[in-house]
Amino acid sequence: MASTSSSPKHLLGIDLGGTKILAGVFNSRLDLIGKAKKSTKARRGVEAVVERIARCALEAIDECDLQPEDVAGVGIGAPGATDPETGRVIFAPNLQWRDVPLKAMLEKQLSLPVFIENDCNIQALGVHQAELDGKPRHMVGIFLGTGIGAGLILDGRLFSGFNRTAGEIGHMVLDIDGPKCGCGNRGCFEALASRTAIFNRLKEAVAKGRKTALVDMLGPGLKDMRSNDLRKAIEKKKDKLAKKIVEDAARYTGIAVASVINLLNPEVVVLGGGLMEALGEHILPIAEKTARKYAMDGVDKGIRIVASKLGDHAGITGGAVLARMRLQQG
Amino acid sequence: MASTSSSPKHLLGIDLGGTKILAGVFNSRLDLIGKAKKSTKARRGVEAVVERIARCALEAIDECDLQPEDVAGVGIGAPGATDPETGRVIFAPNLQWRDVPLKAMLEKQLSLPVFIENDCNIQALGVHQAELDGKPRHMVGIFLGTGIGAGLILDGRLFSGFNRTAGEIGHMVLDIDGPKCGCGNRGCFEALASRTAIFNRLKEAVAKGRKTALVDMLGPGLKDMRSNDLRKAIEKKKDKLAKKIVEDAARYTGIAVASVINLLNPEVVVLGGGLMEALGEHILPIAEKTARKYAMDGVDKGIRIVASKLGDHAGITGGAVLARMRLQQG
Repeated sequence: MASTSSSPKHLLGIDLGGTKILAGVFNSRLDLIGKAKKSTKARRGVEAVVERIARCALEAIDECDLQPEDVAGVGIGAPGATDPETGRVIFAPNLQWRDVPLKAMLEKQLSLPVFIENDCNIQALGVHQAELDGKPRHMVGIFLGTGIGAGLILDGRLFSGFNRTAGEIGHMVLDIDGPKCGCGNRGCFEALASRTAIFNRLKEAVAKGRKTALVDMLGPGLKDMRSNDLRKAIEKKKDKLAKKIVEDAARYTGIAVASVINLLNPEVVVLGGGLMEALGEHILPIAEKTARKYAMDGVDKGIRIVASKLGDHAGITGGAVLARMRLQQG
Repeated sequence: MASTSSSPKHLLGIDLGGTKILAGVFNSRLDLIGKAKKSTKARRGVEAVVERIARCALEAIDECDLQPEDVAGVGIGAPGATDPETGRVIFAPNLQWRDVPLKAMLEKQLSLPVFIENDCNIQALGVHQAELDGKPRHMVGIFLGTGIGAGLILDGRLFSGFNRTAGEIGHMVLDIDGPKCGCGNRGCFEALASRTAIFNRLKEAVAKGRKTALVDMLGPGLKDMRSNDLRKAIEKKKDKLAKKIVEDAARYTGIAVASVINLLNPEVVVLGGGLMEALGEHILPIAEKTARKYAMDGVDKGIRIVASKLGDHAGITGGAVLARMRLQQG
């Protein structure tokens, strides 16, 4: 093991998801120098998951030939409503957590200061600070993956609203007669443009006899389909069905971006998440064109619509940013 | 004329609209003590309109047996993007104004300090301060009239975004295949739930031969229809068509409110404007029920959805509030 420094300079960011835990160690310039990954195993309960988070964190530190003492602080994003002040996860449906004192539990395991935030907020923070140098005063980060969520930075600060749940853009209705959403309503943004929505439309089309290269690649059930399979089908196999369905999702994304621009008028809208990481080149141009068409005349002037390059690392980067910010606040 | 006080205590609020100007004088407890009204005559050009605003202001002051010296300051809401710092109206489509130094022009006419804001922002400010005592930290005011707009109070302050146009909720898309909107897109909130949208649907229904008491009241062309005619038709004539169309608009309003709750999670959503003043009792219960159905589970907990009682006076009240706030800031 390398020697420890007298004043710890490293930061640890953790992205706690419903299926996996990702931990990353960052140096003081916010470069990622090592990481570790673990499945969440949410069914084993709170204690077991927190222990897995701690083990994942220690593995990432070990991966960098560092000791826990070399880390100044830990920032973690949880998939649900969180209270950063009390350090509690109020409600995280994917983990089946209610009122979990995550900060205290993790501090006990790691003997390091821990700071928590909602996962989309922390991703927005990562993009805002690490990719955009914290310059835009108002930024909305929209993260497209299994589901869709957003993090809002207004007046230079994370905005989380009355119940600390602001940013649930995935359940903004775009098409009142659209497909059924997991939330029980119809035509939510998430039911039209998430990875889940795209996969469902592909499977339905295949079931109806539509042709796609994805069947040759994955079999008739499109089993274990991933975003990268879509990219391959579109780019290498020139698959028309996959292209059409991804482009439709991009158009819905553009309409959602326009609604955000009309309502909040942010300086920058950033599109991120796993779906953008794999298919950003196919989604961004159509989403931007649609957004500018649907934004009111003049209101989108000077507003940038960009793709995040952080991809899967937005969460851990944001965790490191959060830890640094909160440590500086003292 | 009554004698003037040594230190002026009164405040003047002005609501500048595309068709009419309303000016109101308020005492220090924000009670409205007198008002005046004038048509805008936007076609006569900027100079003429500003002169009409000044005359309307002086008439309101005279109505209260006061002198301009009794007024400490003037707050005015303009229908478009405004820059409160420079006192300029950046763009007001209904007035065909671009970059008009309204503050300076009106200060010259009135010899009083003038403060400007966007009309929906100023209405939100009036509701927030005069109706809700400034208590909610986050409030969204949605104003339903000829068009639909919103004012956002986030972290206790008006939020106007990058181009100072935040709050254009009327152009949030709720139904991508919905009716055409004035903005060129389809299915905007405004094209589904504004007074204009309701009137258009009624006229279309009558043209298709549907029966309604409104034809007996106003003739087959439904000429000069007003919101109060709808109220009479629903309440006194038990008119089913008018009831159905107003209720549909209320449902769309509820979906828009849910999107706002999902995205911004404000403490209070206030519904105001001329349509709510006339038909609030028919709109609010359905809008609230729909909003709670469409809001994600748990995120609307403790969030109030209420109707403003200020009606047409929200703008002038907000003007007085703005003047008081800005004068106190010095």
